[in-house]
Amino acid sequence: MDYQLDFRIKLWMEEVAERLRESLNQKVEIQEKQGAADLVTEMDRWAETYFVEKITTYYPDHQIIGEEGISDTPVTSTKGITWLIDPIDGTLNYVKEKNHFGIMVGIFEDGVPVAGYIYDVMNHDLYSGIVSEGVFLNNKPLTPIQVDSISSSLVVGNVGNYVENRYNLQAIHHLALGTRSYGAAALEIIAVLRGEVCLYASSGLNPWDFGAGYALCKALGFEVTTFTNEPLNIMEKSPVIFAPKHIHAEALKLLEV
Amino acid sequence: MDYQLDFRIKLWMEEVAERLRESLNQKVEIQEKQGAADLVTEMDRWAETYFVEKITTYYPDHQIIGEEGISDTPVTSTKGITWLIDPIDGTLNYVKEKNHFGIMVGIFEDGVPVAGYIYDVMNHDLYSGIVSEGVFLNNKPLTPIQVDSISSSLVVGNVGNYVENRYNLQAIHHLALGTRSYGAAALEIIAVLRGEVCLYASSGLNPWDFGAGYALCKALGFEVTTFTNEPLNIMEKSPVIFAPKHIHAEALKLLEV
Repeated sequence: MDYQLDFRIKLWMEEVAERLRESLNQKVEIQEKQGAADLVTEMDRWAETYFVEKITTYYPDHQIIGEEGISDTPVTSTKGITWLIDPIDGTLNYVKEKNHFGIMVGIFEDGVPVAGYIYDVMNHDLYSGIVSEGVFLNNKPLTPIQVDSISSSLVVGNVGNYVENRYNLQAIHHLALGTRSYGAAALEIIAVLRGEVCLYASSGLNPWDFGAGYALCKALGFEVTTFTNEPLNIMEKSPVIFAPKHIHAEALKLLEV
Repeated sequence: MDYQLDFRIKLWMEEVAERLRESLNQKVEIQEKQGAADLVTEMDRWAETYFVEKITTYYPDHQIIGEEGISDTPVTSTKGITWLIDPIDGTLNYVKEKNHFGIMVGIFEDGVPVAGYIYDVMNHDLYSGIVSEGVFLNNKPLTPIQVDSISSSLVVGNVGNYVENRYNLQAIHHLALGTRSYGAAALEIIAVLRGEVCLYASSGLNPWDFGAGYALCKALGFEVTTFTNEPLNIMEKSPVIFAPKHIHAEALKLLEV
């Protein structure tokens, strides 16, 4: 790991987070992507552009996969360093709640997670993880709450996935003590990292949705895979489960693919 | 409204909140009530006892309905001043997440809401509302985000209610842009007060679950009723919906009783 890179990412995320908080008091231009629940704002584009300009200035040979597609260099191979960037994760919450959204950055080398960063913007909380070092909350080591089993824990995920019973997710809902849903992968992954819930399973996440969490979970020794226990491909959308190893094994037996 | 009462409640809630935060670093005794998802801890009992002792000292003629039944004077009529107290709302979150729980106090006169208080403990946020005055967040006036319709807004509620489609709640889930679930009525009512979501509907709340929110919503001019548009009886458990007037009317047409 390049520790100057870690230093710079944190600095850049603080700047973006501050600007996003300020934007909540201003009029922000909003557009629909694939319907009224899939929004993009000028601030998503501004934030991703900010990261892309920094990266191309300081690391011109790095590749970038961002939600808004700001970088104009297509990524056709996972070779080298790749950044996975979600400039505002939970844009619907950002627009409607003015709360409960995150910034996510994942750093991968040859397709393997190296470091991950999730900023819980309104709580001023930056979760950073280097796979070889562990996870830190505002630079202090994070120790997750111990979770024993699904039946003695809470779980988190999208309500629609549970209502429609995609991949038999209702089996997990019924086994767990309760199901929570925050509407932002960033906050749902944070809940797993803290051990507030024992797992987060999603029927479909894009690389920018899972990149940061993939690296952060690996830094805690947690498992992150598809529902068929395969490693994630950072160039593909797929179902993803984030959980400590023993919970991950328990959940895979319940999920149906 | 007795403003000395308002002054004292805030002081007492600050003390209880501080003690609850401290308790997260200590071993706390936990017992099951009606199963593994329905917990009570020594801190629930401690907090309710704290309130009951204060109330019986300063207001010996007031009535108390608390979740843990600490007060030994049965309430058989709504006449006079009645306190509805949930010492820890979201005890399961308190135990499992060490996060996302609240303290709720509602003040009623002859069964009618007068004032309500919800403490979002881990965010250090006290929402207080006097029906004739409005709602305040840490003593600053709270202005909710405007919500136009269910189809252009988020909603909040228990995932189980949506999965089981109790009272046809899935119609609301499908119409809304998204459904959130925090596992604590306190935090779900706060989301309505702030306008982060347009409504919170629950298939069954006890008086201590809805008392504070009933008064806080009334202080903003919002509606709080059963699913058949009846006023709430503070001596009975019932389905409850909290929402601004126009959203409340829209939701009642979708709910099936």
